[in-house]
Amino acid sequence: MFQSANIPQTVSKELLQKRLPELREELLEVQHKLRENKAFATIILLAGVDGSGKGAAISRLYEWMDTRYLFCNAYHEERSESESARPNYWRYWRDLPARGETSIVFGSWYQEPLRDAVMGKIDDAELERQLSAINRFEKMLAYENILLLKFWFTLPKAEQQERLHDIEAKGKKGRNFIEEWSGAEHYRAAQTAGEKASLQTSTGYAPWFVIPSQDPDVRDLALAETIAQSMKKKLESGNGKPVSAPAVVTTLSQANAVDAIDLSATISKEEYKEELEELQDKMAYLTDRKRFKKFGFISVFQGNDAAGKGGSIRRLTRSMDPRNYKVHPIAAPSVEEKLHPYLWRFWRRLPKKGHSAIFDRSWYERVLVERVEGFCSEADWMRAYNEINAFEKELTDSGFILCKFWLAISEEEQLRRFKAREETAYKNYKITEEDWRNRLKWNEYAIAAGDMVDRTSTRYAPWTLISSEDKRYARIQVLRTTVNALEKAMKKKDKDKEI
Amino acid sequence: MFQSANIPQTVSKELLQKRLPELREELLEVQHKLRENKAFATIILLAGVDGSGKGAAISRLYEWMDTRYLFCNAYHEERSESESARPNYWRYWRDLPARGETSIVFGSWYQEPLRDAVMGKIDDAELERQLSAINRFEKMLAYENILLLKFWFTLPKAEQQERLHDIEAKGKKGRNFIEEWSGAEHYRAAQTAGEKASLQTSTGYAPWFVIPSQDPDVRDLALAETIAQSMKKKLESGNGKPVSAPAVVTTLSQANAVDAIDLSATISKEEYKEELEELQDKMAYLTDRKRFKKFGFISVFQGNDAAGKGGSIRRLTRSMDPRNYKVHPIAAPSVEEKLHPYLWRFWRRLPKKGHSAIFDRSWYERVLVERVEGFCSEADWMRAYNEINAFEKELTDSGFILCKFWLAISEEEQLRRFKAREETAYKNYKITEEDWRNRLKWNEYAIAAGDMVDRTSTRYAPWTLISSEDKRYARIQVLRTTVNALEKAMKKKDKDKEI
Repeated sequence: MFQSANIPQTVSKELLQKRLPELREELLEVQHKLRENKAFATIILLAGVDGSGKGAAISRLYEWMDTRYLFCNAYHEERSESESARPNYWRYWRDLPARGETSIVFGSWYQEPLRDAVMGKIDDAELERQLSAINRFEKMLAYENILLLKFWFTLPKAEQQERLHDIEAKGKKGRNFIEEWSGAEHYRAAQTAGEKASLQTSTGYAPWFVIPSQDPDVRDLALAETIAQSMKKKLESGNGKPVSAPAVVTTLSQANAVDAIDLSATISKEEYKEELEELQDKMAYLTDRKRFKKFGFISVFQGNDAAGKGGSIRRLTRSMDPRNYKVHPIAAPSVEEKLHPYLWRFWRRLPKKGHSAIFDRSWYERVLVERVEGFCSEADWMRAYNEINAFEKELTDSGFILCKFWLAISEEEQLRRFKAREETAYKNYKITEEDWRNRLKWNEYAIAAGDMVDRTSTRYAPWTLISSEDKRYARIQVLRTTVNALEKAMKKKDKDKEI
Repeated sequence: MFQSANIPQTVSKELLQKRLPELREELLEVQHKLRENKAFATIILLAGVDGSGKGAAISRLYEWMDTRYLFCNAYHEERSESESARPNYWRYWRDLPARGETSIVFGSWYQEPLRDAVMGKIDDAELERQLSAINRFEKMLAYENILLLKFWFTLPKAEQQERLHDIEAKGKKGRNFIEEWSGAEHYRAAQTAGEKASLQTSTGYAPWFVIPSQDPDVRDLALAETIAQSMKKKLESGNGKPVSAPAVVTTLSQANAVDAIDLSATISKEEYKEELEELQDKMAYLTDRKRFKKFGFISVFQGNDAAGKGGSIRRLTRSMDPRNYKVHPIAAPSVEEKLHPYLWRFWRRLPKKGHSAIFDRSWYERVLVERVEGFCSEADWMRAYNEINAFEKELTDSGFILCKFWLAISEEEQLRRFKAREETAYKNYKITEEDWRNRLKWNEYAIAAGDMVDRTSTRYAPWTLISSEDKRYARIQVLRTTVNALEKAMKKKDKDKEI
């Protein structure tokens, strides 16, 4: 979820100076339109690590927006007498904005479940139960004409510590919203709980938007852009129910986890040969029938066209027993498949325990090609992130080891490979009109891939992003990641047995 | 949930003979239309107590429908080798019908959670977690063009025992679908778990339909009518997403819990006086400030117009301290209230602990007047049942005692009271044009009230249905129910303290 969050993002002075006046105008305009037609209410919900500048961002918003239709509700951990004499959610209900209004929420309904999880007061099952209740509540809000925009402010750990240190040194104890449990000493626990919460509650009707908060300009611009665009889109889409937050493409530079892959990595021919042999031996050993029968291995390959998925897959499977694995090349769905839910064709291809399935393209096409080419609606691919996370959770919960690879190449390298394919007779089948067409949408695919990695990289099924500019380097990385994942899972199992 | 289920229902030979040929034609017609336009797939899911005749009902359906587009999937508790080598939901995914097809599901994804709950293998929290997963799955189905019709077959306990005894006597061990844990010895546990499951999973997109199964004709007709009407409605509504099961009004006699209230109950004047005094004393004692400060009392009054809600409320509150309670008469929402979610105005009126609130009409107007008069869409009031259950769960979880009363009178008695009101000067304000208009929709209101009681009578907040044909009788019942509920809750608290 937070993969892109720690990548340093900047915005140029020029862009800021050009964009800011427009943006402020847009914000005022949507506010006034909404005030007139009263189509929905807006809630801007802020969460994230302590010290990330949520308060400062809101001060900025107050400067930019019409404060007559904007109000702020901060909820404290310690409840007032009148709050604690009533049910848990009473204070949030009390303060719901009317249609036409916008409210900003600090210390929302996420505060207590997160704090209790971080402090070890509730276990995983109870956290999950409370998050389900949140989902029910937020779904109701969507159906009842409330546009809920949820923002998660992130900061790398070192940066956070520095800031909190500064704050302490300056004696700013008067900060009016300190969540101690989200401070530096709980950084890791807070991140784990936060990730769990944000994944489970990033729904089609109320997705989380991650706000990288190292640079205040980036932070405030990302926040304001998302608000302006979401409200505008919602106003344009009319009164259809439920009101859900739309996908947003900001004018920011869109530095994301996929863009940030270092493409300079290489490996020498000698090293390659040596490592390849060693790793393939390990693969044969690890997926040996007898050892492997309690497991199952599922691998997903996505990446830029011509990044070398096929070659990597061949090296991965080289030493595996062909009776025990299958490679599934995924193209457009068949007529029969189109008559079923989009995940159906992947459920059908799931291997049995003891077996492996390698997917050359996968269910992620839903949020890549189907999103970019408009083969499904925005609402459809927005809800897909959550559905995919649930699907992969079920896979890993039932004993499957899941490795997801994104193979990346540069635009220039792709051009070289496309041309080489056209010129080489036996590679000719590999290049089509469609490949050239997709290439024209390079940026859109890059944004979709970045969103995908951010929204579907989970503890139980993380993405591995690999430079394939040097194909040999990529093949080794794929093999090494897989071997490590298998070894780790099997070691864990052995350990569990011992106990 | 099952309040109406045990009321004996019958269908006349004449109606059956007249309706059946039409219904069969309708079923074939929707099947063929669906086959042509492939707008959605249909899943008919069967659950309920053992011995209720699910199998027999399906045989009937097979007679009536075109079996070329109909197939049946029965899932057994013991999984096959290929099923157990894959994730839990794999077998359900494998068998999903394609758009244009209809599948019947026996022993669905509800089977294992229910069995484990009944057998005490999982606790409440784990059951709730699994039901949440079911909700996610079913929501996905709705979004993915699958119309899911869920039927819960019910039978009174005595009837079930008799049937199972018969089956045993006849040596019909070969029945191909025996769920032992839903048998007679687990009747109560199965009912508790079933109620919990059906309440939590009766969502706007996939509500449960209760099928009273004592009379096979009623059972099969109710099933077939619901299927035909749901599919027809869905076909007519076009391709809008998500595909959700619509509300259904069958041609059956609609005997429901509200219709079945015995209106002949009376009480003598002497008894009335005596009991009234005693109960009011108890009310004063129970809601005394000091004793009551850990509690809170919320009461809901609904019923036919002129059933005597006001009079009952006055007797209930007579001996209570006016500083500690408030009566809220609920009329049409104000302009401000209309700009908020429909539950907002009730959240605002929630009392503090130590206090009481009596609602003369309530949030139930959503599924009564708003449904009947079309003030909200079908989708809106369908999801309201679940939202209201969640709301009341939160109230009771946080220490409030909740009593819900439905006061019933006959159509004739209402007419007498209306006329009396018109003739008596000081009662004149009590009768309006609107009352006469509502009276014309007596049947529609009766159906809505029956559905309401069925779908919102929970363990933690049951409905009490009271005949108010004799007003004094109703007043005593209201008081007695309230006194009992308060005493029980306070005794429980004292006990908890002792431990």
